[in-house]
Amino acid sequence: MRLRFDDAKTYDLHEALRSAEGLAEYVSEVNNVADSGSYDAPEASVNLAVDAELRNRVKAVVAKKVTSELKYIFVIGIGGSNLGTKAVYDALYGYRDLEPETRPRLVFLDTTNVTILRFYTESILSTLSNVNELLIVSISKSGGTTETIVNTEIFVAAAKKRWKTILERLVVITDDGSAFAQAAYEQHVTYLTIPKQVGGRYSVLSAVGLFPLCALGVDIDALHQGASDIRSYCLNDDLAHNPAAQSAAVVAYHHQSGKIISDTFVFNSELESLGKWYRQLLGESIGKEHDVDGNQVFTGITPTVSVGSTDLHSVGQLYLGGPKDKLTTFVYSTDESQKLLVPNERTFSSVVEMVNGKTTNDVMSAILEGVKIAHNKQQVPFMSVELASITPYEIGAFMQFKMMEMMYLGKLLNVNPFDQPNVESYKLETKRILEK
Amino acid sequence: MRLRFDDAKTYDLHEALRSAEGLAEYVSEVNNVADSGSYDAPEASVNLAVDAELRNRVKAVVAKKVTSELKYIFVIGIGGSNLGTKAVYDALYGYRDLEPETRPRLVFLDTTNVTILRFYTESILSTLSNVNELLIVSISKSGGTTETIVNTEIFVAAAKKRWKTILERLVVITDDGSAFAQAAYEQHVTYLTIPKQVGGRYSVLSAVGLFPLCALGVDIDALHQGASDIRSYCLNDDLAHNPAAQSAAVVAYHHQSGKIISDTFVFNSELESLGKWYRQLLGESIGKEHDVDGNQVFTGITPTVSVGSTDLHSVGQLYLGGPKDKLTTFVYSTDESQKLLVPNERTFSSVVEMVNGKTTNDVMSAILEGVKIAHNKQQVPFMSVELASITPYEIGAFMQFKMMEMMYLGKLLNVNPFDQPNVESYKLETKRILEK
Repeated sequence: MRLRFDDAKTYDLHEALRSAEGLAEYVSEVNNVADSGSYDAPEASVNLAVDAELRNRVKAVVAKKVTSELKYIFVIGIGGSNLGTKAVYDALYGYRDLEPETRPRLVFLDTTNVTILRFYTESILSTLSNVNELLIVSISKSGGTTETIVNTEIFVAAAKKRWKTILERLVVITDDGSAFAQAAYEQHVTYLTIPKQVGGRYSVLSAVGLFPLCALGVDIDALHQGASDIRSYCLNDDLAHNPAAQSAAVVAYHHQSGKIISDTFVFNSELESLGKWYRQLLGESIGKEHDVDGNQVFTGITPTVSVGSTDLHSVGQLYLGGPKDKLTTFVYSTDESQKLLVPNERTFSSVVEMVNGKTTNDVMSAILEGVKIAHNKQQVPFMSVELASITPYEIGAFMQFKMMEMMYLGKLLNVNPFDQPNVESYKLETKRILEK
Repeated sequence: MRLRFDDAKTYDLHEALRSAEGLAEYVSEVNNVADSGSYDAPEASVNLAVDAELRNRVKAVVAKKVTSELKYIFVIGIGGSNLGTKAVYDALYGYRDLEPETRPRLVFLDTTNVTILRFYTESILSTLSNVNELLIVSISKSGGTTETIVNTEIFVAAAKKRWKTILERLVVITDDGSAFAQAAYEQHVTYLTIPKQVGGRYSVLSAVGLFPLCALGVDIDALHQGASDIRSYCLNDDLAHNPAAQSAAVVAYHHQSGKIISDTFVFNSELESLGKWYRQLLGESIGKEHDVDGNQVFTGITPTVSVGSTDLHSVGQLYLGGPKDKLTTFVYSTDESQKLLVPNERTFSSVVEMVNGKTTNDVMSAILEGVKIAHNKQQVPFMSVELASITPYEIGAFMQFKMMEMMYLGKLLNVNPFDQPNVESYKLETKRILEK
């Protein structure tokens, strides 16, 4: 993974870093958390990637629950409980849902959608001949997420009609000591726990992401290794060589001058879910009614996700011609090992003649390059994250980098990047209505 | 379809309508276009839904090309050439990609993604035994869309290796008189045309959307009927009874007070692509460097799409606690015919007790209601679009309503909602690079 600023012409990285007051001190604090190796501080998530014990616990449960018979893994969870897993899954296997034969298949149930629940509990369960073809992973950090519990109850009840032993095919992932962990224990259901200080949106490298991904066959050692390797850079107290600090400083610098929208513009369509994972991370961490001193500030940066080149044909006009309220981060793979040649014998040779003799890579690189030039000309600021390939190692590095960027950004914007107090307001109203 | 303002407590609809200067006159102009029934004006798209001749032409080609053997329809197109079709497809059949046996399957190829192109040209083509199992629809309004032409050439060349007659299984959809139409004619490829004045983002009810949807079995008469029925309301010069005018007035009114982000918050996850269709419509129509008088204004509203309840666990914190820069439109179906009961015998009865004895509808309605109350309490403005059901009729009505809202919004914000001049800037740079 490489963070690039050199081709962006509208701002100066070093000026942004100079304005990042107090950041170096905070980086030292995060270094202390890393040195401790413990899960006591709000920044605890930085220690997940170096936790070999955690990987072993996950692998032991995978060894017990996953056999070659497995056809479907249902991940029941919402928000921080599934966005990270979905990001990695879609990046690595996004197109595989289209291939009917590949197994196991990962299915995500997040909101309570009757059409989708019906489809799985009726059409799909009836195609299975054996309970071992099925694995249900139910994830709720708090243990009290309404949609997750409703989906789990409906799904388990439907499966129980066919197989009395269905609870042996269920794995619960929740906070140590939650009511859900207690209930799982009482029902003899296998469960894995999340350290309390690791928030949902920082939990992808905990059992939350590791278990379903490992069950699917993703190399979780590589995922952690990528995260662990970049962690060293992101802990560097020389901020000019710390990518997480650089990125946070650039975001904060632009926020001051009114860039209140942050667009993650991925140029490999399989990375869209990775953008959505970051959307939660940025939206929930920085969008705050109060700052850390208790002042009512209504601050925040609205995250958007765009897919290149698709969205150039959708919102490109807005991005280049519209309000100067955006900072863009292009994310793309520089791996050129996969490419296709535009056929020499063309069917419609009279249209778009400029692609004659070019490869798909030539075309996509030219579009990306053209877009960057147009951004510079229109004074729309951007930075770029280059992934060497779309692999667990690189995705792990990207996620660790972004989670540490977010801690640093919280510090720079003077908000708590680990809480989400306003979410309670609608939950309370919902509870009132349901209890009426 | 019903547009609701009555449960939103932070603004007054009639005040918004009173500030909609000049809109009634423009509604009269659009009425003239509708009365003419022709495709000569920029607003020509309003006449698509009442064009029985168009539906007949589409059905005639479908009758020739679609048989029970058909397994895959590949829609090659990007932006306005596929977003509308994908919106309708995902709303009606989004979950069906997961059901291996259902045919035909609709596959969208938009950007030039090597992994996906490889997958289809290698893995999938080899599973087909007969050329009639395949239909390729290549759509480019201008006839010169780089990604669409590249994907078409690669896909057709791969298929040609197996079937010499592949061009009989290709349908081109493009502007009447474009170089692509000419090339299709010369190659004896079937083609359907788009009226020149109907822009890409307003073209879903033309052959662009109708042909692939009809080939798949969608009731395009109902789609057009829904659009045609709401058109009458959206042409009403009494703005207080014209939903497109109401919605445009409310958006413009809030834009004046700094709501520069418009969130389409769908509460049925199968409507996410409908939100993305609207994202192009709003982003590209209103995001403008210059107003209609030629002043440099850099105006625009950034569209975002959220999915309830999923994104409450992702960006709900930002929406309720963050900057007051958003206007939300909730979109949801009020159809309660499909629901599931939370099982009486629960597995984890000690967690989330409030859902005991409730249905999935009770839960989702309570969440939506709770979110609306929280929006009112936090002074976050919203409106709601209620669909009676998720059917071609209702989706057609929604799309027609939104396209007319956009024309009216362009008038209120003094920009041309039919052009996209800034897109040319990156295309020019891309062309320079490819021709080097």
